[in-house]
Parts: sequence; structure tokens; C-alpha cells
Amino acid sequence: MIRILWIAVTTLFLGSTWLSAQRMDTMAMHPIQPIAPATVTNQPMVDLGAKLFFDPRLSKSGFISCNSCHNLSMGGSDNLATSIGDRWQQGPINAPTVLNSSMSVAQFWDGRARDLKEQAGGPIANPGEMAFTHDLAITMLASIPQYVEEFERVFDTRVVDIDGVTKAIAAFEETLVTPNARFDRWLKGDRSAITATELEGYQLFKSSGCAMCHNGPAAGGRTFRKMGIVEPYRTDNPAEGRFAVTGRDADRFSFKVPSLRNVELTYPYFHDGAADTLAESVDVMGRIQLGKRYSPQENAKIVAFLKTLTGDQPSFQLPQLPPSSDATPRPNPFD
Amino acid sequence: MIRILWIAVTTLFLGSTWLSAQRMDTMAMHPIQPIAPATVTNQPMVDLGAKLFFDPRLSKSGFISCNSCHNLSMGGSDNLATSIGDRWQQGPINAPTVLNSSMSVAQFWDGRARDLKEQAGGPIANPGEMAFTHDLAITMLASIPQYVEEFERVFDTRVVDIDGVTKAIAAFEETLVTPNARFDRWLKGDRSAITATELEGYQLFKSSGCAMCHNGPAAGGRTFRKMGIVEPYRTDNPAEGRFAVTGRDADRFSFKVPSLRNVELTYPYFHDGAADTLAESVDVMGRIQLGKRYSPQENAKIVAFLKTLTGDQPSFQLPQLPPSSDATPRPNPFD
Repeated sequence: MIRILWIAVTTLFLGSTWLSAQRMDTMAMHPIQPIAPATVTNQPMVDLGAKLFFDPRLSKSGFISCNSCHNLSMGGSDNLATSIGDRWQQGPINAPTVLNSSMSVAQFWDGRARDLKEQAGGPIANPGEMAFTHDLAITMLASIPQYVEEFERVFDTRVVDIDGVTKAIAAFEETLVTPNARFDRWLKGDRSAITATELEGYQLFKSSGCAMCHNGPAAGGRTFRKMGIVEPYRTDNPAEGRFAVTGRDADRFSFKVPSLRNVELTYPYFHDGAADTLAESVDVMGRIQLGKRYSPQENAKIVAFLKTLTGDQPSFQLPQLPPSSDATPRPNPFD
Repeated sequence: MIRILWIAVTTLFLGSTWLSAQRMDTMAMHPIQPIAPATVTNQPMVDLGAKLFFDPRLSKSGFISCNSCHNLSMGGSDNLATSIGDRWQQGPINAPTVLNSSMSVAQFWDGRARDLKEQAGGPIANPGEMAFTHDLAITMLASIPQYVEEFERVFDTRVVDIDGVTKAIAAFEETLVTPNARFDRWLKGDRSAITATELEGYQLFKSSGCAMCHNGPAAGGRTFRKMGIVEPYRTDNPAEGRFAVTGRDADRFSFKVPSLRNVELTYPYFHDGAADTLAESVDVMGRIQLGKRYSPQENAKIVAFLKTLTGDQPSFQLPQLPPSSDATPRPNPFD
């Protein structure tokens, strides 16, 4: 009897060890993990944030909203090399996608904002982007009765402030995740979710070192890396990356590693938007970061793999914005 | 027996005459009729049109879509006096709302486009608006496999042309109607749908002559009228209205009567966008069109009535645009 019990216990122990080793192994094997769907804990705040994200009255001109450059019809980006700001000013850098941006270590290419909330205030007051001020944005919102009511519902106060505005925008942005990519379905065990070619691309992606930087659920966004490790990157763009934040020489030309999620939708690529296609990006990355020259076949396989990272795009009703009141200051696009 | 039959027939005849007279009377009594919900007969065409409506790649810059100036989050307008075009050019005229525009006698303030399909091609090729050409727009669309597939599904051909593009955009725009306004519910018999003040405003709207032009389901959009019948309208805006189309002196300063549906959302008002508020608009219209000076109380009542014309806004998922392919020409915002 004791012997039978001993065998049973040993079997259970060994079995569970084997199982968790398997699980560990699966996790360790894959540098990219599936994206979990968004869990919304405060729907009214998310709804308010969606309105603010789509509201061009947060800009001086009344024409540019968050969605202008982080267009949720187009992978959360504007698909331009550099963005268009107030009075058609040319932006200094490629607009990063807002999709899955909550998974980033920090915001902006140089990581100058700690989180989405801090980021959200930036473009509103940037003279080259929305060209407004936080004070003017708050005056505008506070003049709109429906916004004041929503603020009261969400923040329990009728005092509209920039803290609440950026908090709500960030809450909306946290919902902008893209689960259920074919690659995620494959990671979860659906062997038919990706093709043999795409799988070969993934193996190459891992074996040649791409995954050293592009890892985690977002396949990037977790670290800053120098653009041009093996060979210098040639560009006319004057951005110096992380150096602008830290002032350390070692951080010169170091940029946040972009997420590869939905990369099929977020062209053109790199901080200067200089690469129009995935093929070009893979070629450049191979050469300047890894010292590798991919054959056209290898390049095509990696590109095929990258396209399996396109997930379910955020799906929601186009927000309806509360109308201005007679007291709302009118936008000022032309002077 | 014959007599009884005769009485029955007479009663039936008189009864039905009375009933239809009643119905006629109800219709005659109210210059504005309820808006019927959209009936979609070709959902795939509407879906394609929605994508095209939201696609900024139909502009030279890749930044301006139909929705930029006919923003469906803001009453189908841009809420600017005059619109912002390619390279931040100042538009010549106030962007009319796209909502209920299918009910208009013609499109644009001067009616130069016969219908929505003809209108849709205008801004794409207008150097001051989207600044593209129809040929370039077609080249762009034809380079995107998902668009070609949608064209095939909708038009049974893989040849993308401007005729199909504008037809699909028009089909989407035909769905942008706004039924179920409080005033419509009142028209249909719900006496509690509007307040006593709003009803007084409606009576005043009728008795003082507003409804001579603002009538039909859209409360406007059916005729062209001179801006400044009783007193001249003073404006710096050089638009000459219908004259530009007909060349007839009698049509100088004659503009399409705008719809008053959702007028609460479509500020600022008039072809030059010079009136910021409904109160100002009612005051100006009274003076220059009707020779009437409304008291502040009368003005407020009419404004209260006008706000009952806000209907259910079009409700749909934000469209997801098919990504450009490697062959898609890239937008050209800065040169």
C-alpha cells in the first residue's frame, strides 16, 4: 500500500515538474509573447478619452486631433515619413503608432515621456504639432457643457484640468491593443495559423538576432538601441535620440526599439520614415544592426513572418463629439 | 336593403375622404417632414464608400480625407469658417455638412454638382483641397490588392475607375441621414418630444417666413435663394453663388438654402462661415431675408426650436483601411 502511494506521489511530482518545464521551455523558446485583449475597468473614462483623442478642438486650428497623426484607420499611424503639424509644418520625426504603445518602456522615440499620460500632453502644446496650450485646451473643454458633465461622471469634479484630460486619453490608448494576430494564434498552439514560409521567417528572425531587440508581447518597445551598431545609419534627419534626454554621449543615436506589431500597417519605417517597405527595412536592419546581408529569399521570409504580427485592430464606433457652446472660443487656423 | 347599402357606401366614401383630407392637412400644416432612416440596398458598396470617405490617400499629401472637412464626429462638417486644404490653403467657402446631403437639389453652395456622385470627384482634384488628380487617385487605389478585391466584389470588375470610386462614396453618403430628431418625434405625434418654448419657436419659425425656404425633410436644400433679399448681406467673401454656374445676373449672390437639420452641430454658419452662433444667424436671417427684427425672447425661442432638429448621428465602426502595397506611390505632402 505504502509502495503504491509512493509511486503515485512520485509520478505526480515528476509529471508536474515535466509539465512546468515544458511551459518554461515554451516561454523561453519564444522571444515574443501573445498580446492579451484589453481589460477595461473604467468604461466612462475610456469613452471620454476616445472623444478627446478624436477632438480637433484640442489644436489651435481646430483641425488636428490625436487621430490625425495616430490614425486608427491606418494602424495608429499617419503613414507619412514625418507628420504634418499646425500650418502644415513638417514634423521632425516619424509618428510612432499608438497601437500597443502602453507596452512601451517610455513614450516618444527618445523616451522623453514616462508613460502615455505624460505623452498625451506633449503634442497639444507643441508649436509644431497641435500648437495649442494646455490652458487654452482646458478653457475650450470647460466651455462645453457635455464635456463638463462627462468629467464630473468620470472624475467626480466639474473642474476640467489637463491631468484629467491626459489621464482619459491614456485610458483610451491603453485599450488600443491588437490581440489575435496569426502569430499569436500559432504561439498558442494553432499550428495552421502561419505557413511554412512564415515559420522559416520566424526562425531566421530569431537565429539572426532580430529578437535580441524586438521581443516581448509588443516585439519591441522595451529598450533603447543605437541606430547603426555595425555600420553607421546614413540620414539627413538631425534627431539624436535618447541623447536629447540623458545628455550622455553613449546615448547618441539611440532610439526606442519600435514594436513590430502591425508593422505591415505602419509604413514608412525608422525614426526618419526613410524606409518605404518592409523589404527595405529588413535589409537595412540586417546590415547596420546585425552585420548580415540577407538573400532576397531570406528577406522575403522575414517579411512574410512580420506580416503575421498584424492583430485585430481596435474596433469601436466613431465617437460623436459634444458641440461647442456659444461661449466656446473658436479655432484659429489662419492667424 | 338597397337603401342600407347606399348609406353604407356613402359613409365609407365620406369617411375615407375625410381621413385623407386629414392626412393632407397634417402634411400641409408642417413645412418640415420627418427624415426616414437610410435603407441600404448594397452593403458592400456602402462599406467600400466608407473606407474611401476616410482614406487620406485620396489626397496628394496623404493627410486629407473627405472626413477631414466633413467630419462625422462633428455633424459632418469641420466647424471652421472656411476649410483647410492641401498645404494649409484657406478654402473659399464654408464646408457644408454631408449629413442628409442626399436630399439636396444639387451639391455645393452654388449647386454646380448635380448629385453626390458628381460632388465626390470635386475635392479630390481641387488644387486647393485634396490637390490630387483622378488618375493619381486611381493609380493609388489600383495598387492596393484589398481595394481591387473590394471593387471586384462591388462592381464585378478589377478595373478601378473614378466612376466606381465616386459611386461608392455617394452610396456611403446616402446612408448619412439623421432620423429620430425630437422634432420628428413630435411631428409623428409624440407631444412630449419638444417643450412649450420649442413649440413656440416652431410657430414663430413658420409665421415669420423661415419655412418659405427651410422646408422639406431636410428643412432646406431644395432651392437657391439670394443672400440678402431685404437688406444686402455684407461680407468680404467674394463668392457669387449660383451666378458662377448659370452666368445669369439674377443668380448673383444666390446660394443653396442650407439644411437646418443638425444645425446645432454645424456652426459656424452661412456660406462665409461668418456667424458663430445660432442666435447671430437667426438675427441676421431675420433682418436681411425677412425684414424682421426678432426680440431676444423670439430669437431664443427660434434657436430652441432649431436645436430640436438634431437627429441620430450616423453610427458605425471606424473603417479600417487596406494597407498600401510596396507598389503604392507614397504621398507627397511637402513638395
